[in-house]
Amino acid sequence: MSEKNYVLGLDYGTNSVRCLIVEALSSREIASAVSEYQHGDQGIILDPNNPDLARQHPEDYLTGAAESIQQALSIASDSSKEFSPNLIAGMGIDATGSTPMPVDTEGQTLAANPKFANNPAAMAWLWKDHTSSQEARELTEAAKIEKPEYLEKCGGTYSSEWFWSKLWHCIKTDPEVIQAAHSWIEISDWIPAVFTGNCENPVRNICAAGHKALYHEDWNGYPDTQFLAARHPELSRIRSSLDKSQVQSIQSPAGLLSEEWATQLGLRKGIPVATGALDAHMGAVGSGICTGTMVKIMGTSTCDIIVAPLNQKVPFIPGLCGMVSESVLPGHHGLEAGQSAVGDLFGWWVDTILKNTNHTHSSLTKQSEQLKPGESGLLALDWNNGNRCLLCDPQLTGLILGQTLQTKPEEIYRALMEATAFGARMILEQMSHHGVQVDKVIACGGLAVKNPMLMQIYADVTRCEIYVSDSTQACALGSTVAASVVSGIYPDIPTAQQHMISSPSTVRKPDLQAAEIYDSLFSLYKKLHDSFGKPSNHPVHLADVMKELLNIRQTARS
Amino acid sequence: MSEKNYVLGLDYGTNSVRCLIVEALSSREIASAVSEYQHGDQGIILDPNNPDLARQHPEDYLTGAAESIQQALSIASDSSKEFSPNLIAGMGIDATGSTPMPVDTEGQTLAANPKFANNPAAMAWLWKDHTSSQEARELTEAAKIEKPEYLEKCGGTYSSEWFWSKLWHCIKTDPEVIQAAHSWIEISDWIPAVFTGNCENPVRNICAAGHKALYHEDWNGYPDTQFLAARHPELSRIRSSLDKSQVQSIQSPAGLLSEEWATQLGLRKGIPVATGALDAHMGAVGSGICTGTMVKIMGTSTCDIIVAPLNQKVPFIPGLCGMVSESVLPGHHGLEAGQSAVGDLFGWWVDTILKNTNHTHSSLTKQSEQLKPGESGLLALDWNNGNRCLLCDPQLTGLILGQTLQTKPEEIYRALMEATAFGARMILEQMSHHGVQVDKVIACGGLAVKNPMLMQIYADVTRCEIYVSDSTQACALGSTVAASVVSGIYPDIPTAQQHMISSPSTVRKPDLQAAEIYDSLFSLYKKLHDSFGKPSNHPVHLADVMKELLNIRQTARS
Repeated sequence: MSEKNYVLGLDYGTNSVRCLIVEALSSREIASAVSEYQHGDQGIILDPNNPDLARQHPEDYLTGAAESIQQALSIASDSSKEFSPNLIAGMGIDATGSTPMPVDTEGQTLAANPKFANNPAAMAWLWKDHTSSQEARELTEAAKIEKPEYLEKCGGTYSSEWFWSKLWHCIKTDPEVIQAAHSWIEISDWIPAVFTGNCENPVRNICAAGHKALYHEDWNGYPDTQFLAARHPELSRIRSSLDKSQVQSIQSPAGLLSEEWATQLGLRKGIPVATGALDAHMGAVGSGICTGTMVKIMGTSTCDIIVAPLNQKVPFIPGLCGMVSESVLPGHHGLEAGQSAVGDLFGWWVDTILKNTNHTHSSLTKQSEQLKPGESGLLALDWNNGNRCLLCDPQLTGLILGQTLQTKPEEIYRALMEATAFGARMILEQMSHHGVQVDKVIACGGLAVKNPMLMQIYADVTRCEIYVSDSTQACALGSTVAASVVSGIYPDIPTAQQHMISSPSTVRKPDLQAAEIYDSLFSLYKKLHDSFGKPSNHPVHLADVMKELLNIRQTARS
Repeated sequence: MSEKNYVLGLDYGTNSVRCLIVEALSSREIASAVSEYQHGDQGIILDPNNPDLARQHPEDYLTGAAESIQQALSIASDSSKEFSPNLIAGMGIDATGSTPMPVDTEGQTLAANPKFANNPAAMAWLWKDHTSSQEARELTEAAKIEKPEYLEKCGGTYSSEWFWSKLWHCIKTDPEVIQAAHSWIEISDWIPAVFTGNCENPVRNICAAGHKALYHEDWNGYPDTQFLAARHPELSRIRSSLDKSQVQSIQSPAGLLSEEWATQLGLRKGIPVATGALDAHMGAVGSGICTGTMVKIMGTSTCDIIVAPLNQKVPFIPGLCGMVSESVLPGHHGLEAGQSAVGDLFGWWVDTILKNTNHTHSSLTKQSEQLKPGESGLLALDWNNGNRCLLCDPQLTGLILGQTLQTKPEEIYRALMEATAFGARMILEQMSHHGVQVDKVIACGGLAVKNPMLMQIYADVTRCEIYVSDSTQACALGSTVAASVVSGIYPDIPTAQQHMISSPSTVRKPDLQAAEIYDSLFSLYKKLHDSFGKPSNHPVHLADVMKELLNIRQTARS
């Protein structure tokens, strides 16, 4: 290859879309740009009467793409005289999910239809929309009896954040929308379909289909028609529309960039567009995931991704969010876990409780860095937004204990950080308990990069070395990796990763003294976790918890 | 009686002493004045290296008396031409306790001895000094085996706040002080002794002796010499010094005002000075306590006082702070219970956590008044300062649960108030369970008078009508009642109460709808209370707690 080869990644987050342009051979990040969504509150359409509702207007995805790409192209052109938009050889796309929306026979969004213009049910149902918790419970209960194998692939519980729960809730609450819908589509499928002019017959990505819509080779695809029809006939009707789509992974192109969209985006017509994927999974690719490595994508919530070779038999791991073949890397199972509130939990303390004070994340971090592990005597559960793993229960809430009349705001701030680290350790231990070993943890995402204290706490609590990804845009970088493969620059994803992704230069190593104290605290965390989190015939004794915390506090202070 | 009869009450609080002058026949409060203690932090001598230590300098008690009495006399003279200091017929004194201090053979405080001038061990050990928790545990354990009857009079646990624990801790940590001490004396005994010139052979009050030093008629006085000697010989030596003192109740004079102190205080020489009592017990007298009525003295912590006729057999009530004959009213058992953090708990939230915000008690009250019971989904334990009753365990800490990412500061503020109300209901139910019925609750103290919302929550949670005392100085008023009896104005305490104490004009009645929701919340509170508070062979199931709170929240919001 005589000339430079550039690739472009588009990363659709919760509030904005980011475009990243990378020079594929040198792995140099040439330009990036972000475009905020325009509708709703920071891009999210809310309902003041229903705190569970969170929708997005699909128009934002397209205008956001055009804006961020054009801006990135302009930055790239300014910064390098070798660069030209024509040299972009391919693009990859990742997005939040499950964020499905209803479309008509032509694959056009119902939201574009004036009849439904202001109807949130016709928009994209954002991943964190929790209106379908009742439907999720009913699907889980039905599967337990009729199709237990379905639950084995999603940790034992089908979530209210996922595809079929959302569709069923729409059926129940807005039948007009469901009847007008020819099909439903994840935005990680719809955007590649739009750009490649394949809206009528879009490709579906295995990552979203597998992790969110119960697609699996073991039962030849989507869930059984009868199973869905027994819940509601409309569910099986939508299922049949899905059946017409090809399901594939990121190394296959979704199609070629159409003339119309090449013009709109300022790119060369006909370049390959990779099949989409969920953002966290692309973040894992962009952080250099491989067997034995867990990638933690840390932001408002956390996603944990690991992979295992397809020839390795991975057992059912209760409480994991999902296990899907090739959802991350070709030739590998992709396993997903996560925590529903991480950055959001610290944000709650600072922005809601300590609102209008002189406390900031930075001042509280500074103060709580001075605290020794165990010194505050506090212990918290990180469930202010429910528990995504291992309990898979959105109906759980937060807990803080150990307060005295002297307890200070920074002590609670640190206790909340430690709580998320204990939650992370629960997931690692569950994996290890089921034979999936993690030798290395790579943390990426804003929270990981910005907060060394948090990363040190994670290292101390988990006794793992935590590598902190240098890139703040791991998801978009993952999409450029996919782009480099579909455009033929590299033969496969691992080769592309090897060339395009540099090893993290920062590593947090566990402090063994701290780790020992955290072992004691973790055993108390586990007691609270099990007592409040799961019904049991043998409830745990808790009368020692407060006393143990006082003992640990005394030791830490002396 | 042809001329007006005035009586004077001195109330020694934690940070200041208050003088109240009342016209005994009309029950009119003529004047009151407060003098803040001068030493330490708001009158409390602290140790930065030991958060459990809290001492006071006895000098403050005497200068505070002179200052507050002279100021009250001057106000009284200004406000009424009929008044003259010479018309004051007697005085009564109440004080915090157990607040004992070491004295020499002449009854002079060791703190006045230059050798010990700066030694906190030679000062008064304030009621809330918690340095003796180890000694309290050992005394309790020893009594369980050797003298279980002792524990029956103090709820099953001897406290670190009490007389013998403090002495023993002094023996262990400062033998020089204990050797120099001829005896130890409660400040509620020492002050009357000083004013009446009886320091060498002071009268002791049954209230402090019974509630704090295990004095009881059943075993002819103070605890058995051998029992104390087995802990440490110095304890039995101090005990023998106590044996020389008369122990009596508030209706008997401690002596007559000496010439020296009459001059210092500006009062008539030779007027009777009543035997002292603990402040909370005098607050009960000053609030009109009688059989069937509980008086709650509500401030930073809460004391609950009830009485029962001596001829009524009152059984052992586990977890009550104490039961002492005639400690409140002659002819009655005096029963004491309490909660270790009430105002302090709300103060912690506002002054420590929400420090430097625009939140104040008043703004948070205004916001949380808008909340319906159960609406926040929160539940708290009121143990930030340990639990005084029924668990009698200073080694317990606070707990808040039910938080989401939307939980607001005012919701937690209200949850903390509700937690103290649940704690209050625990005490009422324990009494009722053991046959001591409460028909009426009178709340007095700053917190009761200032916070109507709090009183409404107490009414709703306990399903009791809560009468709020009109006087903000119920303790001092109780001391004037004692003064009116020892000076012969009234023949006995009940008659004096009848004339001098007006019925509360404010009453908070339970709202039955709120009470029903609080019943559900209380049953969850009890689960937490029992799980975290007491070891049990049959631990409680807690997995439903968060879900139940969400259900209650949903019902409250709809």
